[in-house]
Amino acid sequence: MSESIYIAWVAIGGAVLALIYAAFLASKVSACDTGTDRMREVASAIREGAMAFISREYKVLAIFVVVAAIIFAVVNKGPVRLVSLAFVVGAFCSGLAGFLGMRVATKANVRTANAARTSLNKALDVAFKGGAVMGMSVVGLGVLGLSSLFLILTYMYGAHTEALKNTVLPILAGFSFGASSIALFARVGGGIYTKAADVGADLVGKVEQGIPEDDPRNPATIADNVGDNVGDVCGMGADLFESYVGSLVSSMVLGISAGFTAVMLPIALAAVGIIASIIGTFFVKTKEGGNPQKALNMGTFLAAIIFVVAAYFIINFLAPDGLTFGGMYVCAAKLWGAVVVGLGAGVAVGLLTEHYCAMKKGPVEEIVSASKTGAATSIIAGLSVGMRSTALPLFAIVIAIIVSYSLAGLYGIAIAAFGMLSTTGIQLAVDAYGPIADNAGGITEMSDLGEEVRERTDALDSVGNTTAAIGKGFAIGSAALTALSLFAAFREQAGLTRIDITRPDVMAGLLVGGMLPFLFSSMAMKAVGKAANSMIEEVRRQFRSIPGLMEGTAKADYAKCVDISTGAAIREMILPGLLAILTPIIVGFGSKWIWGDAAALGGLLAGVTVSGVMMAIFMSNAGGAWDNAKKQIEGEVKDPENNTGKGSARHAAAVIGDTVGDPFKDTAGPSLNILIKLMSVLSLVISPLLM
Amino acid sequence: MSESIYIAWVAIGGAVLALIYAAFLASKVSACDTGTDRMREVASAIREGAMAFISREYKVLAIFVVVAAIIFAVVNKGPVRLVSLAFVVGAFCSGLAGFLGMRVATKANVRTANAARTSLNKALDVAFKGGAVMGMSVVGLGVLGLSSLFLILTYMYGAHTEALKNTVLPILAGFSFGASSIALFARVGGGIYTKAADVGADLVGKVEQGIPEDDPRNPATIADNVGDNVGDVCGMGADLFESYVGSLVSSMVLGISAGFTAVMLPIALAAVGIIASIIGTFFVKTKEGGNPQKALNMGTFLAAIIFVVAAYFIINFLAPDGLTFGGMYVCAAKLWGAVVVGLGAGVAVGLLTEHYCAMKKGPVEEIVSASKTGAATSIIAGLSVGMRSTALPLFAIVIAIIVSYSLAGLYGIAIAAFGMLSTTGIQLAVDAYGPIADNAGGITEMSDLGEEVRERTDALDSVGNTTAAIGKGFAIGSAALTALSLFAAFREQAGLTRIDITRPDVMAGLLVGGMLPFLFSSMAMKAVGKAANSMIEEVRRQFRSIPGLMEGTAKADYAKCVDISTGAAIREMILPGLLAILTPIIVGFGSKWIWGDAAALGGLLAGVTVSGVMMAIFMSNAGGAWDNAKKQIEGEVKDPENNTGKGSARHAAAVIGDTVGDPFKDTAGPSLNILIKLMSVLSLVISPLLM
Repeated sequence: MSESIYIAWVAIGGAVLALIYAAFLASKVSACDTGTDRMREVASAIREGAMAFISREYKVLAIFVVVAAIIFAVVNKGPVRLVSLAFVVGAFCSGLAGFLGMRVATKANVRTANAARTSLNKALDVAFKGGAVMGMSVVGLGVLGLSSLFLILTYMYGAHTEALKNTVLPILAGFSFGASSIALFARVGGGIYTKAADVGADLVGKVEQGIPEDDPRNPATIADNVGDNVGDVCGMGADLFESYVGSLVSSMVLGISAGFTAVMLPIALAAVGIIASIIGTFFVKTKEGGNPQKALNMGTFLAAIIFVVAAYFIINFLAPDGLTFGGMYVCAAKLWGAVVVGLGAGVAVGLLTEHYCAMKKGPVEEIVSASKTGAATSIIAGLSVGMRSTALPLFAIVIAIIVSYSLAGLYGIAIAAFGMLSTTGIQLAVDAYGPIADNAGGITEMSDLGEEVRERTDALDSVGNTTAAIGKGFAIGSAALTALSLFAAFREQAGLTRIDITRPDVMAGLLVGGMLPFLFSSMAMKAVGKAANSMIEEVRRQFRSIPGLMEGTAKADYAKCVDISTGAAIREMILPGLLAILTPIIVGFGSKWIWGDAAALGGLLAGVTVSGVMMAIFMSNAGGAWDNAKKQIEGEVKDPENNTGKGSARHAAAVIGDTVGDPFKDTAGPSLNILIKLMSVLSLVISPLLM
Repeated sequence: MSESIYIAWVAIGGAVLALIYAAFLASKVSACDTGTDRMREVASAIREGAMAFISREYKVLAIFVVVAAIIFAVVNKGPVRLVSLAFVVGAFCSGLAGFLGMRVATKANVRTANAARTSLNKALDVAFKGGAVMGMSVVGLGVLGLSSLFLILTYMYGAHTEALKNTVLPILAGFSFGASSIALFARVGGGIYTKAADVGADLVGKVEQGIPEDDPRNPATIADNVGDNVGDVCGMGADLFESYVGSLVSSMVLGISAGFTAVMLPIALAAVGIIASIIGTFFVKTKEGGNPQKALNMGTFLAAIIFVVAAYFIINFLAPDGLTFGGMYVCAAKLWGAVVVGLGAGVAVGLLTEHYCAMKKGPVEEIVSASKTGAATSIIAGLSVGMRSTALPLFAIVIAIIVSYSLAGLYGIAIAAFGMLSTTGIQLAVDAYGPIADNAGGITEMSDLGEEVRERTDALDSVGNTTAAIGKGFAIGSAALTALSLFAAFREQAGLTRIDITRPDVMAGLLVGGMLPFLFSSMAMKAVGKAANSMIEEVRRQFRSIPGLMEGTAKADYAKCVDISTGAAIREMILPGLLAILTPIIVGFGSKWIWGDAAALGGLLAGVTVSGVMMAIFMSNAGGAWDNAKKQIEGEVKDPENNTGKGSARHAAAVIGDTVGDPFKDTAGPSLNILIKLMSVLSLVISPLLM
């Protein structure tokens, strides 16, 4: 059976290929020209800020990782102690992927702006290559780390069912939890950071000092631009790294009952997905005056089609006679069907998300129209749109669950989750392209590169908004399915034959779990407020105490500002972070102690998944819709008399909606994705102790 | 065993006593003086409006009730067909209680205003007596209807376990569903109505025509005052009628396994609660300059204490040797403990609700402070407070679940729910007192009764705000526990031994259920927007086409305006109403057809309860906190320069928060209480068909 261990070597090959390709793309980006002195000045300020953030964040995280690793080593017994090592490796890989991605993104922004001075296609090329480094780093490091650990562990402990179930896979879960921990900090910290900087820059710079937006004299402006990278590049990367690794690990765990091939199949599919993503990137091209959206769609859909076709052959090659899960026989075609269903659900959720957030479509028009009668009606309309937008994506997820389960049981749900994430390499490239194009637009504006260049970066940027919406949809959909498959894996590993909600302890767990996303969101939103205040004070201090700053003769202390914002973000992170990590531990061991098993923890995970998914969709989509409602009004003819365009009362109402939407879509909403996965994977990690 | 059927006669005696007492109180209120001509004019306009609403609403509901009754008669077989009759009786009793309560409330408002011209105690007395009519009507009609039906049915089919389980109690569930249907319309329709009138009156009257608030020339002002009665008197009454009846029926169903005494015990406790409530009302008195809050607390707490003590003796009298539920022995003291725990949890949730919504306390101060920097930060702070406020009430509910279950199993949860509602008679009297005092204040203002009188009604009114907050907390807490006990009763009746969330159909049900409160809230909020638009058009039309209206020489067509608003409210009600009623039916029969049992419906109920309770707490408390933040700013020294008091930018920001909060706290939030109970009770009603 275990001769199929060679698959892990193949996967490592694919992962190394992805990393080499990432290095190649990074060198291509680096080789591009950085334009004028002015452009370089702006870009280096953003770059300095991003690196200041990373260095400060990683210092704090290092302490957390070491402490958690020691605890894991102490509380576990026997070989499972190695979970602490896997945890450190997972955290390191996730952190490294974020570091590499952000490093290149902050190089690509200025080079994209410069390329836009000559051609749209060149600019698209640079921005997309920059994003692709992130995408390839995530899948490359994810698969490399996981497969290497798997090879080492099976070499040490063997590849028979007992070893896999009791030693190898519980340790691998630690890798996944390491990724989750970093993701929690990256998403929540990054989310608080970027919104604090945004508010700080606006309130002190624009309102108090009367200098324009994105003015380099404003110390917080750079932090604001850094925030886009921190939140949208690094945060999204860590989020998908977590989903990617989590869905791999959970499908491996759920595969045990069918034997070694079922355990290796997800890794084989990951290798296929990497190759498909790499091929897809070659097709992202457009000509002058062309539509960059089509180019991105072309690459993404092509990668998906290649993956779907290749997956069919791979599954038939590895499991020509199907698999048998504890008595249930599943043929190869059904396994393939589950993967395809997951991918289809991901596309559906992405497209629905885009529908609810896109300009000129029903939901955004509703907010635009409600803004006529003021901020209150604008807010009510946005909340109503956001709440309504939970329904259809949820149905897509539910259909995926039912169909994939009917095809291949719980393993089906897990490989459906992985199917959704199979082309993460190119999907994330497209996501990360957004903030690069956005930053490029900002640099263009600040460096006076002229109308034509600005038009090109605008074309790139508007595509970025759509891709961001779709990417968020994918992140939510995959978080839901990944959490469910981790939940199933937890149940298997904790030895719970069922989790009966008519038991009061399970119902209590369900209720507490359902409450956590509300409490967590509340904390995140309050944290944005507090961090913004610290930022405002620092910016005021710099304007007061640095002579020549307003005149442009002295340079603002960007790093200090970024450092303040980072510090505040990480400080404010501690409480929600502890909530996420301690709750499953307390509920798990508490219920084991009181009721004799960990069923209440199962209820908790179900509750947090149900209300977390709804709140994440609600908050992300409401925020996205408000944002585009504001942009749509800004695109109208400027005529305040008739209440249209910039400067009108309607615009002011929409701006208020957009400001409310900021912590919704960039802090609380996306953080919930992490919350639900982190709690599930942590439960999986502690499940051997709950047996 | 069935000699304890006499308890039903005792309960009927208690119920009749409550109704006689209600009639006595109503005649006392009627006998009071109605004051000046001006006062009578204003009051009769409100009264006309309220009756126009009731008459229109009941016409529509009659059609619905008849159609639903025919369907029940057709789809059921054998004696259970009588469920359609019980349904009609339940709907009638709920409707009648609402009618009686609102009739007296709209008499009591002007008489309270008149009494306030001489003494605070007299005014308190009239307002409280008016509210007590509602309270006594609800418990009286609830117990009378249920006990009479029970007596008739046991006379027809016998009182042995089989007859109870298969015929009598399934039919009684129809009574409960009748109450739920009326409650759904009363709460959602009333909620849409009152907010549509509010916005219509403000936008056309205050903004366009420049006439003051509560000016009788404004046709929608009366609708606005009617709305307070419709939403807070009638809506709250129907809500608690539903909880009261639902918790009684579910504890009777869950009692079957322990024999007849366990079935009768809840009815006996209801009779005790009625007597305790009546005694409590005698102690609601204050002297001039005294604190009306203390008087109301005195009555409420006294009733609770009397109930707790009497319940101990009644339980020991009826079940001196305890009860045995399918092998589990429960002593009398434990039964009593479960009741007390429920009541305690109700008090805790009520006080916590008050904490999050009260002026000068932390959460409201947070919003007041955030309003300094504008509407966006005010909204973010309110949303954050509302989300955070789910945590502690949820813990109170969870503790009640765990403790009452550990004392007396599922029956324990059901009698804990009833314990929370045992003193509904006085609790609802205190709730309904609020809008009466509020209306009295409005009438005082419109009739120029002078400073001293206004101070007295203000004192009564400010207490009303607190009692409203506590009442909403009770309504949410009891809805949660009632829904859970109905859920348990459904499981028993549907023959489901367990509902395992690791089954994908149950998980799918859980996810869909978790989504429904979001979709339902979205619909309710959108409906407010649409209904408000219809209202605005009608008010504009009247100002245009009625000569002499602005000069005060012609009377506005209040009834037309109220009719428009009622029509719009009921029209907008249909979609959310269908959603609530059709979903359990589709999921129940669909899952029976696909998976062979109704476990997915169990998942749906659990999901809707979990996310419904959170959303209800979140929306009610956010709305309440915004409302009081605005009031707190209005109470400050008026100094727009320093951003304090009315007319300041901070006040404008808080007004926007309050407007967003209106549909939160008065439409969507409270409607969710009904949604979760209605779906559970409907599942219980259809459970014989799902066996």
